[in-house]
Amino acid sequence: MKDGPLHSLIKMLSSLPGLGNRSARRIALYLLSRREDFMVPLAEMILQVAREVKRCEICGNLDMVSPCGVCQDVRRSGDQVCVVAQVSDLWAIERTGAYKGRYHVLGGLLSALDGIGPEQLHIESLITRVRMGEIREVILALSATVDGQSTAHYIADHLVGLDVQVTHFAHGMPVGGELDYLDDGTITTALRSRA
Amino acid sequence: MKDGPLHSLIKMLSSLPGLGNRSARRIALYLLSRREDFMVPLAEMILQVAREVKRCEICGNLDMVSPCGVCQDVRRSGDQVCVVAQVSDLWAIERTGAYKGRYHVLGGLLSALDGIGPEQLHIESLITRVRMGEIREVILALSATVDGQSTAHYIADHLVGLDVQVTHFAHGMPVGGELDYLDDGTITTALRSRA
Repeated sequence: MKDGPLHSLIKMLSSLPGLGNRSARRIALYLLSRREDFMVPLAEMILQVAREVKRCEICGNLDMVSPCGVCQDVRRSGDQVCVVAQVSDLWAIERTGAYKGRYHVLGGLLSALDGIGPEQLHIESLITRVRMGEIREVILALSATVDGQSTAHYIADHLVGLDVQVTHFAHGMPVGGELDYLDDGTITTALRSRA
Repeated sequence: MKDGPLHSLIKMLSSLPGLGNRSARRIALYLLSRREDFMVPLAEMILQVAREVKRCEICGNLDMVSPCGVCQDVRRSGDQVCVVAQVSDLWAIERTGAYKGRYHVLGGLLSALDGIGPEQLHIESLITRVRMGEIREVILALSATVDGQSTAHYIADHLVGLDVQVTHFAHGMPVGGELDYLDDGTITTALRSRA
């Protein structure tokens, strides 16, 4: 089994994020143990998703239609746009059910290290959306990392002069987090931003 | 994105061994970011493997042909059969290059807890192979767990009276293991089996 399709499949699986050789082998054997009721349906579902899922032309979300369900939903406020790096961040916010506005998916974060500049992200399209005038608030929901914060700064800078309020996700103690286990930066921030 | 094919795909991926909801979402987004060059080829490779990989009619190994490459290889000794629980164990032994005999894959271990009895494993076919007379040694390479050892006992019992030597993988210190970190059972066994 040093070559052949099973070896190729294991190699492909092992290149998926979070998987290594051992987990890829385990998954391949599991698939082969359930060929008809799981393996073939999984492959067909992958093909269907590859064929049918679209990226929303307005916000960059993934959905069966473009514009996506969120952009088309008239019950959601067009006043607010929440800016996220990835679709997974959008999903995380949607799971809370706490937000009723629209989104804008950047497709990543500015990163000097990885050589990702503004032109590789959907920042220009965000500014265009804001210029159209309906949006009152841009909520920057970007990671509290160097890349996340430099991306937030870049976007805020480019929205100066437009009639829009720019807000950020609050920094502080995670809910349910024990103070004793927090890092110094979070404790300092939570103390300074106390309310 | 609470329904639709992307949701179904994430649900299927999250049921793979070792994956949860978060890793399944990450993999689905990764696949969608590489639709043409990875996602579609992966699905096609899964279908090809589901279609083409066979279980060897002699030993239970997975290969493109049946009997498998190992069973067909005339340079390998037909005197020795190494009994393993799963194909992954066979692969682990093959990676060492230290074994030049044949294999027999049981397809699992006897387990009172999981309700797995002898008739669900390929034990009968092992005994039939031994009865055919070519095999001189049955090497039981089963886990040093309760299930592994009761399976080994069961097989050894059923080979009594046949003209074959039954051996076991040695128990002792793992190579590279530090004595200080070993459990008591392993230290006791290594001491008793000293040579």
